[in-house]
Amino acid sequence: MNPEGDFKSYTTAQQKRINAALRGYLPRASCRPRTLHESMRYSVFAGGKRLRPILCLAAAEACGASDTLAMPAACAVEFVHTYSLIHDDLPCMDDDDLRRGNPTNHKVYGEAVAVLTGDALLSLAFEIMGLSQPAGKHSPGDMIHELAVTSGSKHLVGGQVMDIEGEGAALSGQELRYIHESKTAALLTCSLRLGAMAAGATPRKLASLSEFGQATGLAFQVIDDILDITQSSDKLGKSAGKDLAADKTTYPALHGLEKSRREAARLTANAIAALKPLGNKASRLHEIASYLLERDY
Amino acid sequence: MNPEGDFKSYTTAQQKRINAALRGYLPRASCRPRTLHESMRYSVFAGGKRLRPILCLAAAEACGASDTLAMPAACAVEFVHTYSLIHDDLPCMDDDDLRRGNPTNHKVYGEAVAVLTGDALLSLAFEIMGLSQPAGKHSPGDMIHELAVTSGSKHLVGGQVMDIEGEGAALSGQELRYIHESKTAALLTCSLRLGAMAAGATPRKLASLSEFGQATGLAFQVIDDILDITQSSDKLGKSAGKDLAADKTTYPALHGLEKSRREAARLTANAIAALKPLGNKASRLHEIASYLLERDY
Repeated sequence: MNPEGDFKSYTTAQQKRINAALRGYLPRASCRPRTLHESMRYSVFAGGKRLRPILCLAAAEACGASDTLAMPAACAVEFVHTYSLIHDDLPCMDDDDLRRGNPTNHKVYGEAVAVLTGDALLSLAFEIMGLSQPAGKHSPGDMIHELAVTSGSKHLVGGQVMDIEGEGAALSGQELRYIHESKTAALLTCSLRLGAMAAGATPRKLASLSEFGQATGLAFQVIDDILDITQSSDKLGKSAGKDLAADKTTYPALHGLEKSRREAARLTANAIAALKPLGNKASRLHEIASYLLERDY
Repeated sequence: MNPEGDFKSYTTAQQKRINAALRGYLPRASCRPRTLHESMRYSVFAGGKRLRPILCLAAAEACGASDTLAMPAACAVEFVHTYSLIHDDLPCMDDDDLRRGNPTNHKVYGEAVAVLTGDALLSLAFEIMGLSQPAGKHSPGDMIHELAVTSGSKHLVGGQVMDIEGEGAALSGQELRYIHESKTAALLTCSLRLGAMAAGATPRKLASLSEFGQATGLAFQVIDDILDITQSSDKLGKSAGKDLAADKTTYPALHGLEKSRREAARLTANAIAALKPLGNKASRLHEIASYLLERDY
């Protein structure tokens, strides 16, 4: 384990590299149609912490490769994540005005351009993946298939549909878990797996990272729901208390705050245990999981 | 050239094969979330004529391969086309109630599910492409890159943004051409190129098909604009006269009906001339271009 200061400078350095790569992949804002390209840049650079790309790069490192190999995949998952946020925030869905402290895309560019900006970012993710050259036995086709399944109707999009349909309805613990797995854990796990595939990982290492991703993803969402209750909008950079207002079933609503905190800690411990086969090379992933548990925004 | 009756039975047979393949790629409607999977099937089977997949298969044949090799790509382009129609019809864009004689997706499933259905179909297109195994020198990565660029911000999505921004404004002939190239010709050309790539086509054949696709795509859009003026909603299966009502610049609005008809015929002749290097194997493409020029809906 590296000392805390080192972890902070590590994430800052990674964010910087990732932002430079994202900037390189996005069409210039001066390209026609300008509004669209400006809007893509607006949402991609609206203060995201780059968790998914950082996980993707750290997974490549944990598999013993240079993380540069995983940079195209890291950018692709961030584009998928940004697209899903833009669409989730639309008036016809969660109707959110604020995201990471900034006006949401449709508040700035209008609904039509917001829908199309999401569409363009999803296409861009696959455009980048089509050009990627993974190191070992995994082909770009395999990696694209993995990302497309994760983005699709049984995971990311499916989870959002279930989430919308669940508003105002009493969900069971199992249904809630399905939504969390689809909406959050799936893309976190995919980020890790794509990083590992770019590095030519063995099936055994891929399985470890999947287990880590699933547990970290669920912990992440439980903590998110806790923070929605305990923190202010200012701190979160988005509208707090939205779950309660929308009468959404959340982990704390089902089980209370205390039990939710214990569950997040238990899931994080499981996640860290899953890293064992990767040895010391996975120390960054270990740190990231611990950081996510302790975060307050 | 085959006689007309033969052409009709050819397209009917191709539509049948394509529909069976589309059905096989779509998740079952009983899969969770049901609403989403029902909605995906609703729009994919809402009466599309399968022009893009037919072109894709015919291009593979024109390059001397069995067209079955191109079936995954053929389905992928149809999913991309269906997704783009669902999003274009949304209230925040063209606000259309009717498509191919049926209520548009958002009229049946609501706006949120309509946006997400489009998203899921776009992901599904890339999921299929990730699994495809082209015959020759073109990799699935190359083909995915081609489809993603076509779907993205500089073509399909970009064209829709320019189209929306152009409503109520006076567009030049050049701007109009850019919109037609991006919104229509690009995906038709891509369908042809993917079919050819699946068949292992040479760069020379790919170039011929690109030229054919560009010219056919522009002719197709000019004819579409003519039909919007001259035909009833009943015949078109969508709201007629919408361009005029939306004060949209169209080819007939700029140049009149007669000149538009001549331009469509000129473009079609160019398209057919571009097929020359492909010889007799391209006879189906020749027939399709002639059919598109003569269509009345």
